[in-house]
Amino acid sequence: MAHTPIPNSTRAPAGIERIRAAAREQRAFAAGLFDQLRRDGLDEPGVSRDPYGAGEQRAHASCAAVARDMGLAIERDAAANLYMTLPGRDPKAKPVVIGSHLDSVPHGGNFDGAAGVVAGLVAIRALRSLDCALPHDVTVMGIRAEESIWFQVSYIGSRSALGVLPEGSLDARRIDTGRPLSDHIAECGGDPEKLRQGQRHFDPARLRAFIELHIEQAPSLVEAGRAVGIGTGIPGNFRYPDAWIEGSNDHVGLPRRFRRDAAMAGAAFAMALDGLWEEYDRRGVPMACTLGRFHTDAKQHGLTIVPGAFHFSLDIRAYDEAVLAELDRRVDAIVAEIEQARGVRFHLGTKARAAVGPVDPGIKAALTRGAASLGIDTIDLGSPASHDAAAFAANGVRMGLIFVRNANGSHNPFEAMEIEDFLDGTTILTEWLVNQASDEA
Amino acid sequence: MAHTPIPNSTRAPAGIERIRAAAREQRAFAAGLFDQLRRDGLDEPGVSRDPYGAGEQRAHASCAAVARDMGLAIERDAAANLYMTLPGRDPKAKPVVIGSHLDSVPHGGNFDGAAGVVAGLVAIRALRSLDCALPHDVTVMGIRAEESIWFQVSYIGSRSALGVLPEGSLDARRIDTGRPLSDHIAECGGDPEKLRQGQRHFDPARLRAFIELHIEQAPSLVEAGRAVGIGTGIPGNFRYPDAWIEGSNDHVGLPRRFRRDAAMAGAAFAMALDGLWEEYDRRGVPMACTLGRFHTDAKQHGLTIVPGAFHFSLDIRAYDEAVLAELDRRVDAIVAEIEQARGVRFHLGTKARAAVGPVDPGIKAALTRGAASLGIDTIDLGSPASHDAAAFAANGVRMGLIFVRNANGSHNPFEAMEIEDFLDGTTILTEWLVNQASDEA
Repeated sequence: MAHTPIPNSTRAPAGIERIRAAAREQRAFAAGLFDQLRRDGLDEPGVSRDPYGAGEQRAHASCAAVARDMGLAIERDAAANLYMTLPGRDPKAKPVVIGSHLDSVPHGGNFDGAAGVVAGLVAIRALRSLDCALPHDVTVMGIRAEESIWFQVSYIGSRSALGVLPEGSLDARRIDTGRPLSDHIAECGGDPEKLRQGQRHFDPARLRAFIELHIEQAPSLVEAGRAVGIGTGIPGNFRYPDAWIEGSNDHVGLPRRFRRDAAMAGAAFAMALDGLWEEYDRRGVPMACTLGRFHTDAKQHGLTIVPGAFHFSLDIRAYDEAVLAELDRRVDAIVAEIEQARGVRFHLGTKARAAVGPVDPGIKAALTRGAASLGIDTIDLGSPASHDAAAFAANGVRMGLIFVRNANGSHNPFEAMEIEDFLDGTTILTEWLVNQASDEA
Repeated sequence: MAHTPIPNSTRAPAGIERIRAAAREQRAFAAGLFDQLRRDGLDEPGVSRDPYGAGEQRAHASCAAVARDMGLAIERDAAANLYMTLPGRDPKAKPVVIGSHLDSVPHGGNFDGAAGVVAGLVAIRALRSLDCALPHDVTVMGIRAEESIWFQVSYIGSRSALGVLPEGSLDARRIDTGRPLSDHIAECGGDPEKLRQGQRHFDPARLRAFIELHIEQAPSLVEAGRAVGIGTGIPGNFRYPDAWIEGSNDHVGLPRRFRRDAAMAGAAFAMALDGLWEEYDRRGVPMACTLGRFHTDAKQHGLTIVPGAFHFSLDIRAYDEAVLAELDRRVDAIVAEIEQARGVRFHLGTKARAAVGPVDPGIKAALTRGAASLGIDTIDLGSPASHDAAAFAANGVRMGLIFVRNANGSHNPFEAMEIEDFLDGTTILTEWLVNQASDEA
């Protein structure tokens, strides 16, 4: 790692007012970089930063050029992730990594992912402006290929960096090009062979913390009237990607008591899950339940035929392994009850699981404390969606999340993040770096 | 109409025991004709009597041959319906028509439809055996193309006979051949041009009654432990063949309170309808509700996407126009409530209606009385399904229905009608002809 020389200042004590000012004066820089990224990815409506394709590639180039201008050390790994590092005073001190992904869904918004990279660069500029030299490196990471819609694989960039990309992932084909991930990686300057050999960029045990700033993908902050939420965790899930209900294909005239209507059983299942979710909402236990596919069999469709088969996919997510286990039992009980009541049989098929991505309680408390000292009102916020930070947490890295208000959801061209709200989030990040990050073991 | 001469006996008083014996002695005839029809239509599993095709054509030929052997007058109309008549003593007396359809669904059962034609021939043989000459003609009608799966048109044969086949029906294409109904009719000896000109075989005002014996298409008689049910009516319906719910396509992470999940709205709709049906069942008001298509949009499917659109077809049927009108209002109220509660919008699309096919109360009472005098326990039974009899009733013909026990539903190869139960039904029919039909105005 060849670091560009930088002033080797000692850590300067920085008051809250100075930190706020230092972060706030990055407004033009942040707005300019967001504009550049938007131009790079423009694909009306919205932006398309296709992973390991032209869109993502331009975003990486723009961020690297900015980092080079800032005098940061630039590195790329075998997965072509981008690392932009402000070296610390002590080369042996564990680094802090701040990052998010630079790809997007097709015709997505400009902020989903990119905001976390821009935030890292803004924080480094603020540190510089405060003349604050930390003992440890601060590395901003532009992560590859987070959006699983393209390759149907989660966390490609972050898991490659940690050396835990699942076997077979390199053979996954991009949904539009039909070409394997390995080809795409090679084309963008990566080295799929090294990935196959398990080469990693980070030893998780050697990282101080991973922080991801991300736009909120729901309007909870809008509802709460807050600019920033402090993440409480990334949900784990269990999924039935391809389940179905076996009933009996009958004549429209069959009385209710004789029917074994698979669609009605599906509806009863959905309503029971919806009721379960409502109950958990009332108890204040966050979870989510999504039936993405929910359908009768098109081959058997008839206006006067009682459906004999009903298909669905189910994704149930929560922030606590105990809650997930409880939900798992509740779903099984609902299935048994409906089978009994409606004379149908559920075939749940393959079950997939993903572990909860826990936020480090110390980092969460520190971010909350910092926000309070800055006079920024925050709320605790579970991440309903998946993030690269989960891959770091799953591999033992202490992890924190900062969410920025956004009215219109994500994965669409209408994302609405105000630059003021973004600066609130980066101010909290900066304060944490200046005053608290070095205390992390 | 050239009648074959028959013995012009006067009406002989027939006691209950003689009637029972006369009907019962037709067992071998009935079983033999059913066997012949099964051989004619065999298409394992089950039988396929494709309307205006080889399957139906063979059934018509077999019935006509039997009727010719019986010395009945044979006629065919422009729709190639088959009429087999035992002339009455008074050529001016209004005839009784006994009939049902001779087509089947693909790989259906042998009895759905055909039982009503065989029953008419059995009853005529019993009248002969009783030496009972009625004042009026008794015409057994082998009706064409009742199963709407083939041409997607209801009651083709019976409505053609009454001159009320809807415009455009002759251009409907058979689902398997892709050829228009008019071609199929011509090929089977009919005359589609005459049908286009509105030629009819029957003036409904000139008919005494239409009686249809049919296997039950649900196991109500099995449940009740009765061989025969006396029909109370054929349901009318309202239908939304192609409705959909507009919600919002959102990210899997969106909390419940922000979702506008079209599939959950569809499930809520189904459960509300199911609850409505349960309520009507408790009140003893027969109805049925079928969501034949019930599905998310395959183009938008994703394990982690909240469905933004949901499609369904709805068929709601009941035996009373006032009940149908009430159900119509209840469905509208359910739609409004779900739209309000779940932030979705229903697009119900085209609405189709079919009038209730009322059974004549006098005929129903007479059949019930006759059954009681024969010592055959019956129950009142609404027909959950559609029948040609409804077309007669809708055109002002007094109509009666006799249902015969069948354990395994219809439209499948597993129909199970016992010949003993069938003979109970035909005994009731014979008693009505001998003792009561002539009293009908």
